[in-house]
Amino acid sequence: AVNADRLWSDLMETAQIGGTQKGGIRRLTLSDEDRQVRDWFRAQCETLGCTVEVDEVGNMFATRPGRRGDLPPIAMGSHLDTQPTGGKFDGVLGVLAGLECLRTLHDAAYQTNAPLMLVNWTNEEGSRFAPAMLGSGVHAGVFDPAFADTREDSEHNTFGSALDSIGYRGPLKAGSLSIGAMFELHIEQGPILEAEGDTIGIVKGVQGMRWYDVEITGRESHAGSTPMHLRRDALTSSAEFICAIDRIAREMKDAVATVGTIATHPNSRNVIPGRTVLSIDLRHPDKGSLDSIEAQLDAALADIARAHGVTATMVRIWDSPPVPFAETCLQSIRQAARQCGYRSREMISGAGHDAAYIARVAPTAMIFVPCAGGLSHNEEEDASFEDCKAGAQVLLQAVLDYDRR
Amino acid sequence: AVNADRLWSDLMETAQIGGTQKGGIRRLTLSDEDRQVRDWFRAQCETLGCTVEVDEVGNMFATRPGRRGDLPPIAMGSHLDTQPTGGKFDGVLGVLAGLECLRTLHDAAYQTNAPLMLVNWTNEEGSRFAPAMLGSGVHAGVFDPAFADTREDSEHNTFGSALDSIGYRGPLKAGSLSIGAMFELHIEQGPILEAEGDTIGIVKGVQGMRWYDVEITGRESHAGSTPMHLRRDALTSSAEFICAIDRIAREMKDAVATVGTIATHPNSRNVIPGRTVLSIDLRHPDKGSLDSIEAQLDAALADIARAHGVTATMVRIWDSPPVPFAETCLQSIRQAARQCGYRSREMISGAGHDAAYIARVAPTAMIFVPCAGGLSHNEEEDASFEDCKAGAQVLLQAVLDYDRR
Ligand SMILES: NC(=O)NCCC(=O)O
Ligand SMILES: NC(=O)NCCC(=O)O
Repeated sequence: AVNADRLWSDLMETAQIGGTQKGGIRRLTLSDEDRQVRDWFRAQCETLGCTVEVDEVGNMFATRPGRRGDLPPIAMGSHLDTQPTGGKFDGVLGVLAGLECLRTLHDAAYQTNAPLMLVNWTNEEGSRFAPAMLGSGVHAGVFDPAFADTREDSEHNTFGSALDSIGYRGPLKAGSLSIGAMFELHIEQGPILEAEGDTIGIVKGVQGMRWYDVEITGRESHAGSTPMHLRRDALTSSAEFICAIDRIAREMKDAVATVGTIATHPNSRNVIPGRTVLSIDLRHPDKGSLDSIEAQLDAALADIARAHGVTATMVRIWDSPPVPFAETCLQSIRQAARQCGYRSREMISGAGHDAAYIARVAPTAMIFVPCAGGLSHNEEEDASFEDCKAGAQVLLQAVLDYDRR
Repeated sequence: AVNADRLWSDLMETAQIGGTQKGGIRRLTLSDEDRQVRDWFRAQCETLGCTVEVDEVGNMFATRPGRRGDLPPIAMGSHLDTQPTGGKFDGVLGVLAGLECLRTLHDAAYQTNAPLMLVNWTNEEGSRFAPAMLGSGVHAGVFDPAFADTREDSEHNTFGSALDSIGYRGPLKAGSLSIGAMFELHIEQGPILEAEGDTIGIVKGVQGMRWYDVEITGRESHAGSTPMHLRRDALTSSAEFICAIDRIAREMKDAVATVGTIATHPNSRNVIPGRTVLSIDLRHPDKGSLDSIEAQLDAALADIARAHGVTATMVRIWDSPPVPFAETCLQSIRQAARQCGYRSREMISGAGHDAAYIARVAPTAMIFVPCAGGLSHNEEEDASFEDCKAGAQVLLQAVLDYDRR
């Protein structure tokens, strides 16, 4: 059995690295806080006798040898980066619970058949550098390392320069370590488990997600002397589009769409905005529905642009299709949840996860535990001691079950 | 007669100070570019034998003595600061045309009865520090110098520290120099003169303007796993409000309303925005209409907040009531336009001007000249050589006419 006190104390200790006044974490990927938590993570793994390797996009792999040299490792892991105003559990729980599993096995001197591997994937959040799940995506061959290197944050720092500056560009070629299977524990980040009184979510897949960059160009002019009918207002046009996005998403069952970022130029109180840029995050479990919504968004934007005399572009910058997880891994999770006696349910993830990309190169599945009010990407994100313990225990037993087969 | 070539060459020379690639000017108030153009202005005035005094908020007063010591000076002037993406004529024309008038009188050794004064008012644009017309407002006793000092830009630099850092806090107590009358020449910044084929606008007053700060607070949460009906989205709420502002303004004859600035937090693609701040610039020639629109905006915001489960505040941070200009000054402008043989019309200014505040402490009026397409607060703002010449000539003759009475 895992030591839940030890896990909890790791969670609370690392939450200080980038800890915010409101009790959350601000640990943007490849920031100095990210470096600190990476250093901590490496030291902990090495204490357990694991070998820690780092690949060319900063993914960190800690390996604990197994009995049999011929088997590829069974991986656990998630990410240690956070949103700008992130919580203490999103990502971190999956990495630290994996660490706790390794410690438990270490203390018990338990030897698995396959090697075990604990992974910290780079830039899962996608907040500083788009897209999300970039490190796991590179590992899975979805993105080139060179593509990752050139991604820019809002201050035009590149991913590559940030990676170099924290000293976490490793010698390992991306994707060169093969993974036999992966189990990722994560908080649900949504309201279902809590509402239904379940402790464990057996995650059968991840919904599809697409990101877009929208740019609307009108004409800067004077706020006081330009009559309403002569305006080509980039921000009012954008506002109409944001309302349309919201309406279109609400009209389609199970769809969600979010405008998370916006900037307007020249951003002066008495200047009619000449240019506005915004982002769209669109998700649905089904590809056909995503296509249909995308077409509706395109049409709405064209209508608005025509009505306001502005020009508009909407560019899809990321497309992560719906992902089904592997039945073999799901069986081990079901079995583990049953053994532990936790109430569980099967579900689809609303959030994206590194597991979604790793599923392309290895049998993969996820375990969810509830979070308070379903709230995540919020400094008040919370998960209970008991649920974290349950998640770590199911993770350990699922891995051991998979290893025995 | 004024020397229009000399005026034009001054316009083009000073346009280099903060000149932008698109042919506009970025010379934010109290920036280093503002310091440079102030140094230039002071040197030019001193060359003409004027005394240059600076008050405690950086307003610059150049005085040319008159024949009679008992008369207060007749002022000309406007501002040398610009919008972030401003044009080459907004403000600058009024100051440099005033300089050209002084030069013309100097060359002709013409002595006026009253002293003449040329003023560069600080922070007319209100883009870096809100509100607009701050220097002239302090001069007129509408604002305390201490209030001005504490105004902050978006990087939290104060007006006071910026003023000190460019070395333009003068020893003169604000408002201590009394002004006998003021004439301000400006481009119209709107489409009327051009559309009607008039060269000179005889400006009878300035419409009322109010600025508001709006803050909408929702709840940050995950863009992928938070169903649409559980969201408290600060940006979608703001977008609905921006659409309502636009609709309400269009429904009221002669009203204009603009949202020029917006910022959303945490500004991450996959986080539902928890907080959005935006500004409103509202204008109408009539106070009752402003009150009525303000009430409609308040009600619309409350409805939207209720519907989205967000909280919202709308704070009026500035109220500049409609201003009627002085009949005595208007008579001199009418007379000058007639003498010069320019087609003219009487009009109300859609833009705010330093003259609007000075009108509280001295007889004041304004002269407009056309600008291309009515476009202003835009780097492509343009005014013709002939129209600048006409404006400067009418300014000179109006001042001399007023001086003779
Ligand atoms: N789990 C998580 O919050 N991942 C970030 C990518 C996403 O937005 O789903
Ligand atoms: N003239 C001018 O553009 N003044 C700035 C203040 C305003 O927005 O009207």
